[in-house]
Amino acid sequence: MAGGRERLGEFELISRLLAPLAKDEPGALGLLDDGAVLASSSDSDLVLTKDLMICGVHFLPDDPADLVARKLLRVNLSDLAAMGATPRGYLLGLCLAPDTEDEWVARFADGLIEDQGSFGVHMLGGDTTAGPGPVTLSLTAIGTVPKGHVLRRKGARPGDRIFVTGTIGDGALGLLALRGQVTDPTGVLADRYRLPQPRVSVGAALLGRATACLDVSDGLLADLGHLCDVSGVGARIEAAALPLSDAARHALANAPELLETVLTGGDDYELLFTAPPERTEEVVAVAAAKGVPVTAIGDVTSGSGVTVQGGNGEVLGFARSGYRHR
Amino acid sequence: MAGGRERLGEFELISRLLAPLAKDEPGALGLLDDGAVLASSSDSDLVLTKDLMICGVHFLPDDPADLVARKLLRVNLSDLAAMGATPRGYLLGLCLAPDTEDEWVARFADGLIEDQGSFGVHMLGGDTTAGPGPVTLSLTAIGTVPKGHVLRRKGARPGDRIFVTGTIGDGALGLLALRGQVTDPTGVLADRYRLPQPRVSVGAALLGRATACLDVSDGLLADLGHLCDVSGVGARIEAAALPLSDAARHALANAPELLETVLTGGDDYELLFTAPPERTEEVVAVAAAKGVPVTAIGDVTSGSGVTVQGGNGEVLGFARSGYRHR
Repeated sequence: MAGGRERLGEFELISRLLAPLAKDEPGALGLLDDGAVLASSSDSDLVLTKDLMICGVHFLPDDPADLVARKLLRVNLSDLAAMGATPRGYLLGLCLAPDTEDEWVARFADGLIEDQGSFGVHMLGGDTTAGPGPVTLSLTAIGTVPKGHVLRRKGARPGDRIFVTGTIGDGALGLLALRGQVTDPTGVLADRYRLPQPRVSVGAALLGRATACLDVSDGLLADLGHLCDVSGVGARIEAAALPLSDAARHALANAPELLETVLTGGDDYELLFTAPPERTEEVVAVAAAKGVPVTAIGDVTSGSGVTVQGGNGEVLGFARSGYRHR
Repeated sequence: MAGGRERLGEFELISRLLAPLAKDEPGALGLLDDGAVLASSSDSDLVLTKDLMICGVHFLPDDPADLVARKLLRVNLSDLAAMGATPRGYLLGLCLAPDTEDEWVARFADGLIEDQGSFGVHMLGGDTTAGPGPVTLSLTAIGTVPKGHVLRRKGARPGDRIFVTGTIGDGALGLLALRGQVTDPTGVLADRYRLPQPRVSVGAALLGRATACLDVSDGLLADLGHLCDVSGVGARIEAAALPLSDAARHALANAPELLETVLTGGDDYELLFTAPPERTEEVVAVAAAKGVPVTAIGDVTSGSGVTVQGGNGEVLGFARSGYRHR
């Protein structure tokens, strides 16, 4: 039949679109109860993270809903990875806009289903409502680490080397590409912005090896600054050592000033960690075993602050230190 | 100095206004890391709940921010109570509006501080951002129950009695009072709407005693309907048995048609539970020991559906079965 279709009510929306996300998780109790149940054990600690995403701030109205959902899950899984935790499940807070179509929610759920398979997690529960504002998403992810072994931002020591997984700058360059400010013929930069690759298996493999760790979400310089501040150390990194994708390398060849974007843009969701220099081969090997390259980009120093060295040993200065969002 | 005051950035807002909420919780790691850590134990299960509240939907722009915060925490604690869980902590998702003043956030934090003391919980972590829409709040509460003993909506058996804690209808009548549609000379109804009393200690005391339990948030009839549906039973309750506050009794004396509001309005946050009749004295006594009255309002039947009997044994009908929000 043609004509307007009435939107599903809260209960129908949960039972038709969201309950399938929880059907293989006994602790979700079929989303029929006031909360979810998760068995715990005395040999592990729980790690809990929560990230919000708002339409118009963290994603765009016409971004594909499945990609939005996967990004939401992945940024939280990236936080778990930064602490070395293995994901156990998540709760979803879904605040719909007045004009959100059921189709959008269905596609959003499809995205979650896909990533649930990739990362071995299920929905445990959550809440669904609608408001007068834009779609606002909240996800709480729960993981576990062996008791007493959580990876923290605090713990870097002078003399440690500084490492990053994967490549740096693709997320921020991807956002510029989506805005038409950077050419991105293969679309790989935009893909990296839209769909982070949380380094979950690498994070777990760094337990007992890295001295400090976080994920690069605010920008490499800002996040390295956070790590240094809480560890009470400084850092010196070499611009030439930064691992760049072919696409980023190509963009920088055309516009060298984009180095600042690479260093200060956000949304990489790579792990930035420190480890004693004698562990270099070991951390590279354990990450390689998970299919993830790891690159040494500099050293932890005594003192404070982050210094970036150019190819001739000169200190580079940048106007912005990182993405600051309220 | 007169004139405009710049709003705090995300990091300052967290360190000044939110970090104090977490300072006595070692697992919050000073809000300096990507997530929080919570020790778990092999003799308990975790219970996780998440509820959203949106300005203009679940609270009003001029509601005092401290009361909004306390309601947000309390509706989640009520979900934990419904499952018999003892609260362990919470994560807060705070999405501010373009015009949210720091003062609002400070008062919001004051409300949380106050209730943290009352309920023995601390903030574990969360996320703070701002968007173009109204203030949108998300809270994830974490509790524990003895392993395998969680209270569920499923489990009511024909012949069980149906009980509620406290009084029913004050929340919905309070909303009408705030709209000027019901007189509320003492303000007690409005207070009940603004500030639920989660029955945390009663919920824990019902473990092993109640056969099924939930909290009354959508309205007594709707919630009892949920409990019956998942338990595969029906229910018969007596209108005359409903526990009413003096204020609700006074409102009904003036407008008997408000009985429908009492039965179908939401926001009571009392516990609705079932137990075998021979446990009646016991459940009344354990709740009384926590200072909370418990009243038997009817019986679980075989079949399905909820019937309300009037004073002469007649079946009462209602147009609405409960508050349905998407």
